[in-house]
Order: sequence, then C-alpha cells, then structure tokens
Amino acid sequence: MTHEAGIPLGIRFKLLSDTPQDSAAQVVNEVVVGDYRDLDTLREFARGCDVITFDHEHVPTEHLKALEADGIPVRPGPEALVHAQDKGVMRAKLDAIGVPCPRHRIVRDPADVAAFAAEGAVEGGDGFPVVLKTVRGGYDGKGVWVVDSVAEAAEPFRAGVPVLAEEKVDFVRELAANVVRSPHGQAVAYPVVESQQVKGVCDTVIAPAPDLDEALALRAEEMALGIAKELGVVGHLAVELFQTRDGRVLVNELAMRPHNSGHWTMDGAITSQFANHVRAVLDLPLGDPRPRAKWTVMVNVLGGDYPDMYSAYLHCMARDPQLKIHMYGKDVKPGRKVGHVNTYGDDLDDVLERARHAAGYLRGTITE
Amino acid sequence: MTHEAGIPLGIRFKLLSDTPQDSAAQVVNEVVVGDYRDLDTLREFARGCDVITFDHEHVPTEHLKALEADGIPVRPGPEALVHAQDKGVMRAKLDAIGVPCPRHRIVRDPADVAAFAAEGAVEGGDGFPVVLKTVRGGYDGKGVWVVDSVAEAAEPFRAGVPVLAEEKVDFVRELAANVVRSPHGQAVAYPVVESQQVKGVCDTVIAPAPDLDEALALRAEEMALGIAKELGVVGHLAVELFQTRDGRVLVNELAMRPHNSGHWTMDGAITSQFANHVRAVLDLPLGDPRPRAKWTVMVNVLGGDYPDMYSAYLHCMARDPQLKIHMYGKDVKPGRKVGHVNTYGDDLDDVLERARHAAGYLRGTITE
Repeated sequence: MTHEAGIPLGIRFKLLSDTPQDSAAQVVNEVVVGDYRDLDTLREFARGCDVITFDHEHVPTEHLKALEADGIPVRPGPEALVHAQDKGVMRAKLDAIGVPCPRHRIVRDPADVAAFAAEGAVEGGDGFPVVLKTVRGGYDGKGVWVVDSVAEAAEPFRAGVPVLAEEKVDFVRELAANVVRSPHGQAVAYPVVESQQVKGVCDTVIAPAPDLDEALALRAEEMALGIAKELGVVGHLAVELFQTRDGRVLVNELAMRPHNSGHWTMDGAITSQFANHVRAVLDLPLGDPRPRAKWTVMVNVLGGDYPDMYSAYLHCMARDPQLKIHMYGKDVKPGRKVGHVNTYGDDLDDVLERARHAAGYLRGTITE
Repeated sequence: MTHEAGIPLGIRFKLLSDTPQDSAAQVVNEVVVGDYRDLDTLREFARGCDVITFDHEHVPTEHLKALEADGIPVRPGPEALVHAQDKGVMRAKLDAIGVPCPRHRIVRDPADVAAFAAEGAVEGGDGFPVVLKTVRGGYDGKGVWVVDSVAEAAEPFRAGVPVLAEEKVDFVRELAANVVRSPHGQAVAYPVVESQQVKGVCDTVIAPAPDLDEALALRAEEMALGIAKELGVVGHLAVELFQTRDGRVLVNELAMRPHNSGHWTMDGAITSQFANHVRAVLDLPLGDPRPRAKWTVMVNVLGGDYPDMYSAYLHCMARDPQLKIHMYGKDVKPGRKVGHVNTYGDDLDDVLERARHAAGYLRGTITE
C-alpha cells in the first residue's frame, strides 16, 4: 500500500522481504528476499537507498543504529522506534512527558502481578483482572493476556521477556489518533477515529469517531502530535487510545508506521496515511489529512473457512459499485487479515452496513 | 497507473516493455523487456497470462489475432482495436452505424485533396483549410496536418500510408466521453469532460464540462456507449468530440485504453478509469464512475528546459497540500508529458488556478 502511494509521487522502492510471497513482494519492482534480523543482510540491502522505512517494527534497534552509523537515514530512527518496539520503554517515556496512560509497571513474577493488582484494588477486591504484556514482540492481541488471578499469571513469564502489568481500563470505546511528522517538524493530524476490536483484532474503524466531544478530539490530536514531537517520530504515528467512562483518553499502544486504524484514509482522506508517511520519510511537504466524505468506514477482511474468495469478491463488487476493496494477495487462513474494505458517504448507518456486509461476505460469515 | 489501480484489487501484472526505463517498468513486479512488434516475443510473453491488455494501440492487429488464435484473451480484441489503430477503418465503421463525424474520405494525392476541399467549399472559396491524417501511427498531433492549399498537401503522402482528409470543423470546444464496457456487456459512462489542447497536445481537462447542455451531454454519453457496443470494445473507450457552433457533437478520435481525458478520475471519480479498465478486461463488475467533487481539473505536466524538477515538486506540494501530483518517472525533455496534476473542489476558478499553477511551475513556465 505504501508502494501504491509512492507511484504517483515518482518514488521508487526497494523492498527487503521475508519471502517472495509477501504482499509487498508481489507488487514492488525491486525485491530482495532476506532476513531483517541479520545485520549483514540489512547493510547489503541499504546500499544505494536514500532512506529506509518499515511496514513493521521488528527490525532490531541495534541494527538500525548500525545503519545510521553507516550514514543511512532510518525513518523513524531507532531512538524513536524503540518506543513502538518496547512497551516498557514506551510507558516510561510517556510517564516522563506527562501523557496519561493506564496504571502500569514492569512485574517480576506472578507474585509481583498480585502485588500490582492489590495496589489498584478497591475495598474488598484483589485488583484483578490485570493486563499483562510482553514488552517486545506482540501484535494483534498476541503477547497480551488478561489474567483474573495469580494462578493465570504464570504464562506471560515463560518467554523470558520482561513483562509489563497494566490496569484493565474500564473504557467506553477505543479511539485512535493518527499523525504524521516530517524531519524538519511539519506535522499533520487525521481526525480521531473509533476503532472496534473483536478478539483483540481490529475489526471496524469509523472516521471520524461518532459523537466524540470536540474538546476531547482536540486533546487526543494534540496528545498524538505531542508524542510525535517528544519522541522524535518521523513518518506515521498511530496512537491507540482508551476513552474512559469518566471522559479521559489514555494511551494504549503506539505504532510508528501506517496503521490499520488509518486504512480508511486510502479512500476517505485527501491524502492517505501511506502517501503522507512516504512524504514524511523523504522530508517532502505533507499533504492535507482532512476527510473527503462525512463518514468513512473501514472493515478488515479476515480469512474464513474457504480459501477461494473469488465468487465473493465478484458478488461484493456487483452489489456495491461504490465499494473500495483492498486485497493483500495473501493465502486465506482462518482469522488472517487478508484485506480490508472502505465505504464512505453521508449516512453512517448505510456506510457501516455496506462495509460490514462486504467484509462479512468476503469472509464467508454472510452468505446472502 | 493501471498497476497502481490493480494493486488493491489483488490483480498482478506482467509487463512487456520496450525498455527497463519505461514508466510502468519502474514499478511493476514482473517486467519482460521486448519488442511488441515481434510475434515470437508476444507469444512467449503471453504464456501464463489470464488476459492481455494495452497502454497503447500499436501492437499489430495480425499479431493480436494470432494470440487470440492461441487461446489468449486479448481485451480489447483486435476486431475492436483496429478502429483505434486505423482512422480509415474507424471512419467507415462510424459512418455505417450512423455516428456523426466530420466530413471525410480517403484521398489519393494532393490533387484529390483539392477535390475533397472543393466538395465542401462555400461559394467563392476553395474549401481549404483541410485536415489530413495518416490512417495509422499518429498521436498527440503527430501524423496530423492542417493544410491551407494544394501545395501544402504533399507532405502527408510521403510516408506511403493511406491519407484521410477531413473537414476542419468550426468547433466551440473539444469534449471527451469516456466509457468502460466489459465482455458480458456491462457498461458505465463517466461525465463528459472539456478537453483543451495546446499545439495539438492535451493540456487541460475539466470534469464535468462546464455549461454543457444536459441533453447534449446525454447524447455524447449515449454515443460513446453505442460505439463501445457496436465495435465490441472491452475496457476503456475514450471518444474525443468536437462541440460545433451549431450545437452538435462530432467524433474526432477514438482511444481504446485509459486515456489522458480520463486522468482526472484518479482523484475525481469514485472509481478511476484505470480501475474500471482492469475490472472490465477481467470481466469483473464495474465500479461507480460518478465524480466525487463538484469540479475536478487535470493539467498535464510537460517537460521544460530544466531536467531537475525536484525543487519545483517541493514548492508545489508545500503551496497546495490538496494537490494530487502524478509523476511518471520519465526523463524531462521539452514538451514531453512527464506527469499530470489533479485538483478538485467546489469553485472552478480556484480548482483551475491551482492545477494550472502547479503544472506551470513544474514545467518552469511559472516561477513565482
């Protein structure tokens, strides 16, 4: 999707890919298959690149520092990216700059989890449930546990990675504030969106978030812009937020790349998150982030039980000529994100129904 | 641009390109460099393709027939495409199906041109000027001559290609009707646009055509849909039209591929011409062709005197964050189409000014 956005800007990509089957490797002109965890591979790959950027956060921080030392611009840089790689570092930094987060601390073992829970307990309770996260390597609900007792708290420690405990926030809904920042400090903010998760995986994004108090929306945008600045982010920053019952926003997660909560921008904003990410990492002037429609809805297409989606794909295009389908060219596996759909218009109910119907039909959970 | 439109649909391209430097060859994953005039090259290339389509009309008709005979779907097929390849065939067919064209006939030599002119002369005149066109091989004003006398009429015959004579139409402006048709006959029509040429080259397209009588717009759309049907076009068909002083539309040229007069659709329509062309050639349901904005303007970026456009590119993005730039990755040569810009909005004067400023600045003819 970043390549797609780079084509009209005249920007050409060289891709380092795990396998030739990866989505991006199917469409980019120059593809190198190699392991992003291997510094020699990265150094060889980086030769001749004007700038390096990412579609995930898993390249080891120390390798990125080595590339920077070699004189290759890495954007976002490792000093910023570490906050999206390590949840412990992220929480410590957000605390230091005064950004509201769920109550949290690094915990040593299950007994320490019980102590953390007790610190937040209301009278007569034990403070459970508690959220436990490995500080590195999680995504889409992986590496995250919601535990109801000390007995359940053993599992997260088995990987030998530091574990972060967080209060389970009593939230009304989840929001996301997406911003883009360029090296010389220009920044733009997309409207705050509502993000609905199913089983820890993003399902639906509504842009802008319906019935969101204007002051709270502004606070969320300013918070995201502030985080981008304080952390020295270059490129796209997604700030996943909890909207609490008492009218606050707390930071849940950070992602430093075009993000699922910004996929709606491909059809719903004047400039997509992918175009602005590319513009930012090349220090080009940023594009207008404003929406083009009153409502835009994105629903992820998850793989279902049937590997062949072709007839569903035909059905969806025929049923709704305004539907914007984005397929990733991935083999269908149950629950795997294989694409997304965008719809837009003036009537939120209609826009939601069209997106949900299409995504459900493509997955096979809707058959009429 | 077709590849860009195919990515979200999950459609993968193999490209036959003249050189590795061609615009499409810079961005498509699988590129074969070879000569489209060589049948063996075409046959080798076509192996494994589900369908073959084009971004120009120059592949020899007989080669396309050979590919079809090999069982490769060619869309548009040679029986249709010949009407965009040979202006003599095109005029004969349009006459046969009753589509209004400028007065025309094939001419043998300069004396015959004088006779053709005299046939249309008003009292006391000689009937010049007359438009002469080689029936094959012309584009962007090449292969077209406007001659004022029999003495000037020798040049077009030198290539040894049949020459078509046409009346020089007294037109108010040029329009274009863009339609897309799929193999099973579904068709969509984009709004009729105004196309402004400078020195025979498309300069500006305004969508929809301002102040166009609704009945005339409908007639133009129906004419284009009728031509697509009668000629068996599959994919995009652009019908370039003259709007005459007496309120008629006459067909100037046909193009059977995404066309410069439809580039506005990339940012201005719900479904772009490129996406609909791809959908049509794969017999997928077509997308909604309606505009997303009240006005969309496209201005071509021609190469100027300075090969390095980078600082102009920065300027344009900084001046107008809503500007949509489409650069083709071509080396800059004076007068060469190296990209286009799209703007859209509610105020036509503003939309026109922004597009013209950006294109002029990129070319170097505007410096402030």
